[in-house]
Amino acid sequence: MGVGMHDSAPDNDAFPEDFLRTFAELVRLRRDVRRFRPDPVPDEILEEALNLAHLAPSVGFSQPWRFVLVEDTARRAAAVRSFERANAAALAATAEEDKALYARLKLQGMREAPVQMAVFCDDATRTGRKLGARSMPETRAYSVVCAIHTLWLALRARGVGMGWVSILEPAEIVRICEAPAEWRFVAWLCIGWPEEARADEPELQRAGWEQRLPLTKLCHRL
Amino acid sequence: MGVGMHDSAPDNDAFPEDFLRTFAELVRLRRDVRRFRPDPVPDEILEEALNLAHLAPSVGFSQPWRFVLVEDTARRAAAVRSFERANAAALAATAEEDKALYARLKLQGMREAPVQMAVFCDDATRTGRKLGARSMPETRAYSVVCAIHTLWLALRARGVGMGWVSILEPAEIVRICEAPAEWRFVAWLCIGWPEEARADEPELQRAGWEQRLPLTKLCHRL
Repeated sequence: MGVGMHDSAPDNDAFPEDFLRTFAELVRLRRDVRRFRPDPVPDEILEEALNLAHLAPSVGFSQPWRFVLVEDTARRAAAVRSFERANAAALAATAEEDKALYARLKLQGMREAPVQMAVFCDDATRTGRKLGARSMPETRAYSVVCAIHTLWLALRARGVGMGWVSILEPAEIVRICEAPAEWRFVAWLCIGWPEEARADEPELQRAGWEQRLPLTKLCHRL
Repeated sequence: MGVGMHDSAPDNDAFPEDFLRTFAELVRLRRDVRRFRPDPVPDEILEEALNLAHLAPSVGFSQPWRFVLVEDTARRAAAVRSFERANAAALAATAEEDKALYARLKLQGMREAPVQMAVFCDDATRTGRKLGARSMPETRAYSVVCAIHTLWLALRARGVGMGWVSILEPAEIVRICEAPAEWRFVAWLCIGWPEEARADEPELQRAGWEQRLPLTKLCHRL
């Protein structure tokens, strides 16, 4: 084993109780970060997190995640302009009574975060030979999301913040990243040290935009 | 803090090194399980995992995950029939040279696993007031995937296995679960104690279906 399991039941590969408690803390303290310090993130931390992300589940073991680190200043600026257009459209579509609060929210750290990464799903991959993805091809993109979520937890565990920007024009991000036509844009990730080291609640909750729902309302039995 | 952070840098909310190592083990040992023992999973374990899943990131804090525990025998049998139809179609569409191996693979534990759960995305939810989901509405389903992936890790940490079945007819699962028309079917989850407590590699890798790709081929810089 190597990590001290098998405490209680010999045929039960559970992790130790103290790990379980800390893992719950990690899940609870993971935030969608929009306020970053400009300090660089060591390459080793990013590499370690990407290596863990690469162990995420994927439909038919298709591993369809494609990571594009965007370092070029002009490309970054073009992505910010895409956000600005998409955000102006989103604000215009928002209900009148919500507009003032919406306009005050900080929704991305695309200028401040030292690492900017676009993540795509290769919908044309031959890896996995389409196993599991014929009746539900969207599961390829879902696999990419599992990798992104793994990256998020791995970075947070190192104290590094990540924010997922979705207020963008997918076709424009494909163009900016010179991605093949078969690549589906999934996420733009801002990665860096958070201004606020630890935040117990989502920023949208603290800003009064939305509250956490009671889980019991979201679970059903039949 | 409560979990022993702040070891080295006072403004860095990193988790302890031993936790980081064990977290990497958890990610590495999480499997898509298809072979289950029939023993029941304690309610407390499932509840704990669902509570963690409910802390997953969601676009605009929309929390669009909807969990349906399917206990009814007739509904479970109908879902198995949906798998059988979708799998027959998938086998027929598989390349001739792959058909024999495909037919030998065990692709789900829908009959054996004690817990069977359908997960949906409420695409019509008003929670979060569509923030972040106007230009990319698919991010709601991606949020549900983050919750599913959290559930997966939380269960695996307790030694409980989970398998994600995607070889199904989405419209039929919506019908079986009497889900509202606005709910998008995301995943059918089989949950239970795995026959094999610990497996280092994905079953599809061990069966010779697919190998892990080198991560460097999936990362790009520009």
